[in-house]
Amino acid sequence: MIKKTLIALGLCLSFSSFSTLEEGMFPLSELHRVDLEKAGLKLPLKSIYNPEGTSLVQALVRVGGCTGSFVSNEGLIITNHHCAFGAVAAASDPEHDYITEGFMAKERSKEIPTSIKARITASYEDVSAQVLNGLNAISDPAARSMKLDANIEQLVKDEQAKHPDLLIEVSEMLQGKSYTLFRYQELKDIRLVYVPQRSIGEFGGESDNWVWPRHTGDFSFMRAYVGKDGQPAEYAEDNIPYTPKEFLKINPNGVKENDFVFILGYPGRTYRNQPAQFLEYQNTYQMPYISQWFDFQIEQMQELGREDKALEIAFASRIKRLANTTKNYKGKMQGLQRTSVIADRKKDDEGLMAMVNNDPALKNEYGTVFQEIDQIYQEKLATAQRDLWLGQVFSSSGLFFSAGYVANRQEAYKDVKKADRDNFIAMEFVNRAATLKRNGSIAHPELEKRLIKALLYYGATLPEGQRPASLEAFSKESDIKESIDAFVEKNYAKSLFSNTEKYTEMLEKSPAKLMKVKDPFMEIAGDLWTQLMKYQDAEKKRQDALTILLPKMIDIRQMYQKSTFLPDANSTLRFTYGYIRGYSPADAEVHNPFTHVKGILEKASNSGDYYLEEYIQKLLESADPMSIVCFLYNLDTTGGNSGSPIMDDKGQLVGVNFDRAYTATINDFAWNEEYSRSIGVDIRYVLLIVKELGKGDHLLKEMGV
Amino acid sequence: MIKKTLIALGLCLSFSSFSTLEEGMFPLSELHRVDLEKAGLKLPLKSIYNPEGTSLVQALVRVGGCTGSFVSNEGLIITNHHCAFGAVAAASDPEHDYITEGFMAKERSKEIPTSIKARITASYEDVSAQVLNGLNAISDPAARSMKLDANIEQLVKDEQAKHPDLLIEVSEMLQGKSYTLFRYQELKDIRLVYVPQRSIGEFGGESDNWVWPRHTGDFSFMRAYVGKDGQPAEYAEDNIPYTPKEFLKINPNGVKENDFVFILGYPGRTYRNQPAQFLEYQNTYQMPYISQWFDFQIEQMQELGREDKALEIAFASRIKRLANTTKNYKGKMQGLQRTSVIADRKKDDEGLMAMVNNDPALKNEYGTVFQEIDQIYQEKLATAQRDLWLGQVFSSSGLFFSAGYVANRQEAYKDVKKADRDNFIAMEFVNRAATLKRNGSIAHPELEKRLIKALLYYGATLPEGQRPASLEAFSKESDIKESIDAFVEKNYAKSLFSNTEKYTEMLEKSPAKLMKVKDPFMEIAGDLWTQLMKYQDAEKKRQDALTILLPKMIDIRQMYQKSTFLPDANSTLRFTYGYIRGYSPADAEVHNPFTHVKGILEKASNSGDYYLEEYIQKLLESADPMSIVCFLYNLDTTGGNSGSPIMDDKGQLVGVNFDRAYTATINDFAWNEEYSRSIGVDIRYVLLIVKELGKGDHLLKEMGV
Repeated sequence: MIKKTLIALGLCLSFSSFSTLEEGMFPLSELHRVDLEKAGLKLPLKSIYNPEGTSLVQALVRVGGCTGSFVSNEGLIITNHHCAFGAVAAASDPEHDYITEGFMAKERSKEIPTSIKARITASYEDVSAQVLNGLNAISDPAARSMKLDANIEQLVKDEQAKHPDLLIEVSEMLQGKSYTLFRYQELKDIRLVYVPQRSIGEFGGESDNWVWPRHTGDFSFMRAYVGKDGQPAEYAEDNIPYTPKEFLKINPNGVKENDFVFILGYPGRTYRNQPAQFLEYQNTYQMPYISQWFDFQIEQMQELGREDKALEIAFASRIKRLANTTKNYKGKMQGLQRTSVIADRKKDDEGLMAMVNNDPALKNEYGTVFQEIDQIYQEKLATAQRDLWLGQVFSSSGLFFSAGYVANRQEAYKDVKKADRDNFIAMEFVNRAATLKRNGSIAHPELEKRLIKALLYYGATLPEGQRPASLEAFSKESDIKESIDAFVEKNYAKSLFSNTEKYTEMLEKSPAKLMKVKDPFMEIAGDLWTQLMKYQDAEKKRQDALTILLPKMIDIRQMYQKSTFLPDANSTLRFTYGYIRGYSPADAEVHNPFTHVKGILEKASNSGDYYLEEYIQKLLESADPMSIVCFLYNLDTTGGNSGSPIMDDKGQLVGVNFDRAYTATINDFAWNEEYSRSIGVDIRYVLLIVKELGKGDHLLKEMGV
Repeated sequence: MIKKTLIALGLCLSFSSFSTLEEGMFPLSELHRVDLEKAGLKLPLKSIYNPEGTSLVQALVRVGGCTGSFVSNEGLIITNHHCAFGAVAAASDPEHDYITEGFMAKERSKEIPTSIKARITASYEDVSAQVLNGLNAISDPAARSMKLDANIEQLVKDEQAKHPDLLIEVSEMLQGKSYTLFRYQELKDIRLVYVPQRSIGEFGGESDNWVWPRHTGDFSFMRAYVGKDGQPAEYAEDNIPYTPKEFLKINPNGVKENDFVFILGYPGRTYRNQPAQFLEYQNTYQMPYISQWFDFQIEQMQELGREDKALEIAFASRIKRLANTTKNYKGKMQGLQRTSVIADRKKDDEGLMAMVNNDPALKNEYGTVFQEIDQIYQEKLATAQRDLWLGQVFSSSGLFFSAGYVANRQEAYKDVKKADRDNFIAMEFVNRAATLKRNGSIAHPELEKRLIKALLYYGATLPEGQRPASLEAFSKESDIKESIDAFVEKNYAKSLFSNTEKYTEMLEKSPAKLMKVKDPFMEIAGDLWTQLMKYQDAEKKRQDALTILLPKMIDIRQMYQKSTFLPDANSTLRFTYGYIRGYSPADAEVHNPFTHVKGILEKASNSGDYYLEEYIQKLLESADPMSIVCFLYNLDTTGGNSGSPIMDDKGQLVGVNFDRAYTATINDFAWNEEYSRSIGVDIRYVLLIVKELGKGDHLLKEMGV
């Protein structure tokens, strides 16, 4: 999921100075509260962040869903390999497989245009008052939520009218409390400059995803172009390179263990100020169910893929996506088991409650907040098992999505007046035909049958009270599995919705027929669709109520934690600092903070995740085996920090951030010196590959190396 | 495979002193060549090994297929948990699940008799001259090999007649060169004393097999009993505990990093003096084929097991056995990729050849040895792909074994004279009915069909020249896989050999009918059986030739390596020493040499390989989290060292050896300070578990703790 990408320059919170050192995704406005000089920074704070002049922040750029940074005064951007992947794939054709072979533009004219857009922050301002205007007068959570959305929409609309050339977005800085409006300049002509071979940029593949030690050259170079007038413009051959207000200098000597480093980037979302019940929901329901269900899907796809090379290729990206989530969840669950995060949060919550209860004024204002939050979670937990499953039914099976939707619309159709029927059909089907087509990516019959069987079995064996009525018949059978399998085998091929061609034709040419269609799966799918709608309504109500309650809890938390309170990440620009440092991932295991070329050669294979072409292997064999490849640091990052520059004590570029260690997946819930470690590709490896493999002396020269 | 278990006290080799320190599985007779005092031993050598008096060697005992040691003067033996496993399973019944619950005899009378026998060495002598007597006169390798076997058989027979109360065995100490005759005393009444819960003794299961860091309490206690006269006797209630000549004292304080330790034990087999071609055969053919084929079988069994709990249980031990091999092979292949073992061996072989060629006298005697060895290996490698597969066909499919055997006997039957026919059938079937029954462990039709399909597909797609004639028809099909699948589906159920009941009945009641049976699988199985026989004949010839050539190569190697030459392990008693030491299994990873109770709690789960009962978890939570569990040392061990005592510089027991680290699987090919590490359970963990979980204060007292 690509998060809204906003910059938090203007956030003003009422906390004093930070007591802990390395923890924290600091909003820039709060940086003055940390003693960065003592921490090791050898620059004045103003050279990092200076609202009145130029600073390193201006070398930051959003490219696609990632972070990048300018590394020359001619618009050269460094970011991750995986951030350029889509653009490289689009630029490739059977004769030019840039994914496999990599791509190096030997001169400017050879740089390849992409559809990537880049954003630079133009300005921003606090708009909390306008966003919250009139909300206190509304007590109904749903109405309040609608008013808040309307306020934001109006704000954006008004501002956009004033600045038609800029992008306007409003970002929530503290839930229900603090909002900032951002104006972005958008650069529309971004070109590929250098992308190493996939075997370098993705080395380690899924095996090494979320893993340290790492040996991945996950970097790429792009260049931003503007019109001849220096203003943002769509691609044109005679566009000129963009001149950024600031760019990063390279430190070709890199850093060493225990050196001070910092990162500027856009961490996506953390849950550190959520109540303990949130963690329990994640740990007891969300993560175990989703990871088990994704694992099951992966197993099925791998099994089918083993017997059919074409299927293996067709399933590859889906497997990769599911595996990324399931590995992250397993890391988090392992982390929650090995640490006291949940118990700590509970203790923390109890501390907040005690503080409130011991102070009559606080008790008066906040006395019921925790009970109300707890009530909402108890309600959510009561049917969590069913609801998580319902959420997967329609995203896992295209047949079920179509059957459920049609069943639901047939039901609605009954109440439509005769005169309105054509209009209803046009609205519900003709206008939406494109989105209603079956999800082709999972339209493999054997796979879908297996998924449907498993989904129905799960539903039919839910505890009484959660079990949907349409599955009761199955759950009364002596062999539930057998009866479901037989039902699916008997009806799958017969179903209109398993016949993509026939269904699509009807959808596009005679949608009215869909109002009369009978299908063996429609009864179940229709019932589940209704259940899902009911759940979503209930969930919306709960979220609206939390939108009022959580800001109160944050008030209390701020009072309680005082100087140590930190707002959660929200895809806005944050600063985080710390040190190059190894760690112990488990009893008797130590991970050192640098990997080396020798480690690539240890892992290298002629197939699979560690595939490395022989000519690259030979090239690396001729390098110093102790050349640094990747490095590890105790900085506080999360998803969204991809491509962020890692800078040394002088603000020079020493690496590019791209992942976290397995144990650090739990960062989203809590940061901890013992297990929170992030992974970057070392600038020395970037330079080695650019020079020796990419033959990119011209790029090195441009970067002043 | 349980190797012949022999003790190498009498081996005399003609090498001087050892230059490297920690490497080596030393025959005891060679110990005086190492400066053990300098290495850290604080005992006189005679207290370890003293042919004229008592020494630590006499505390050693073979129990079943493992090593054990006496730890009290009343016959108490400590060994591994996995060495007692079979006996514990046999002693369990539905009411007493000692496997799961563990077993502690609160008093002597409660100790449980087993079928385990134990051996103690009585005496030994060099018999090389007798074994090699008359061999030089025979030039035909096969005839020479038969004569050697006959010499050994006669020796054993003569000796056995002299000592009917002892076990007699002859062991080859250096291939084709040196032989020792051993006389063993056999203790026949071995009882179970204490076995911890499986969740302690097998903690980590298959996941942690061949893995460090390890947290397994792989130990158990038994007791040896003898008749009232002190002589070995079968079990009798009034037998008395055996008094060993020597027993080990416990050091309850254990050892620390870098401390000197040594092991006495029976390492099985190593291949360090084999030529480079042997390693290439292993690395290019044997290990990749077998691990792929075993992985395939494991996958199929896991897949079928997921859908059927009963099958999961039925397949469990087979999966465990295959997984043990495949993980070992993968460790070795990774090791061979990451190290220069093969290149080193080649260089070594080239050095030997150069030495021979540069010396006219040597050239005259040994000039053709390397070419001849190479010729034999070239022949072996040429059809290795087919031969490894042929070797698996009949061990993987019971149907193929039966069909192949019957087809082969039908062929032989054609040449049998009428009068001899009854006799032939009696010899071939009646007398062997028990062994000819289908292998029940794989008699699951769906599994067997999958295995047969895969085996036939492999055979039909072998390169021309290696492809068996009976599979030619398949290999000409446009879709080979499809045609094989169809053939198997069509014929499997029809086959007599897939019908265990019918086949067994015929085998036992009317074997003559088998001479007339026609079966759809017999043509292929019969052809493959013939091919396998031919291969085995050729292989026997090659081995016979090597039996003459390898001793010559060892002669040369001894001359070349001089003081560093070490004989390969051969299941006879060896001494190995070194230090408690961590290592780096891969770039940026360090493994410390001690694991702790906190690591058990990190891994503990309520299911799977890390299952730990809640009451045990609670008990361990109350212990010091930094209590030592297992430890790591750079000693030179291999399979067969299971249960070996690990002793400190004063000869006191500090742990029990039970496994090697993943990287050390390559030990069988070469020892190396960087990756050769073995794993033992620390005596402190043994004592903690005995006391706190087993409530075994009486055992601690008996051991003097």
